[in-house]
Amino acid sequence: MVLLLISCNTKDNETMTTTQIFPKGEKATEYFTGDAWVKMLTTDTKNFDAMSYDVLFAPGSRNYWHSHPGGQILYCISGEGLFQQKGEPIQHLKAGDVVEIKPNVIHWHGATPDKEFEHIGISTQLAKGPATWYGAVTDEEYNSYKK
Amino acid sequence: MVLLLISCNTKDNETMTTTQIFPKGEKATEYFTGDAWVKMLTTDTKNFDAMSYDVLFAPGSRNYWHSHPGGQILYCISGEGLFQQKGEPIQHLKAGDVVEIKPNVIHWHGATPDKEFEHIGISTQLAKGPATWYGAVTDEEYNSYKK
Repeated sequence: MVLLLISCNTKDNETMTTTQIFPKGEKATEYFTGDAWVKMLTTDTKNFDAMSYDVLFAPGSRNYWHSHPGGQILYCISGEGLFQQKGEPIQHLKAGDVVEIKPNVIHWHGATPDKEFEHIGISTQLAKGPATWYGAVTDEEYNSYKK
Repeated sequence: MVLLLISCNTKDNETMTTTQIFPKGEKATEYFTGDAWVKMLTTDTKNFDAMSYDVLFAPGSRNYWHSHPGGQILYCISGEGLFQQKGEPIQHLKAGDVVEIKPNVIHWHGATPDKEFEHIGISTQLAKGPATWYGAVTDEEYNSYKK
């Protein structure tokens, strides 16, 4: 007898193997710890006053502490991620979750230590200016996540 | 021997069974032909000047002709959809596709005749005003799609 198990890409499957839905971009060269791939999805700031992108984080990777003067929204597509606002506990993210990051709120996002994570991000109200980047999320900060 | 085949939710699988990733909303009561379920994902227009929502279209369903004064972006999440700008041919959509609909462009979107379709939509620059709705997409218009 052959028993074949395939993990599918649904929010109810906590043991899934991630299958990226949006196109895989180029490897990020700055503002990330570990490997992440960023694909710009929309860049027409004139017509939408926004930019959007798909980010695939390798397990353990995350971006630096940063903030957006016009806010940012994350739509979690596949895998498992982490998110933290400065001064608050780390939150766990899974496919189907949405994160609203208000203007000028300092935060970071990334994968869990052992799973990939894909989200769409949209930077809204871009006319208010570009993101401000602070330092890397330290291993101590990243590993402070309590399940 | 047991052969077990599972259709997973990836853009490369044309015969998939759709698995909705974002939460299923309430059935839409106006501006749609056929059954569609709309879940608001973000409504904080003060901080983002945008609203976003997940829409699940039953096979054959679509919204009415409409336009947005501040533009709209669609992120195709699962299933197979159709999109048309006024005066142009119908386009086929699949998971991983992104559609940029510029301000005041009259258009509609929906499922293909035989597949469900899920997209995230974001209405940008909401301060410019709400959508304008025109009439229903006729069966003749909907069925004009050429594969």
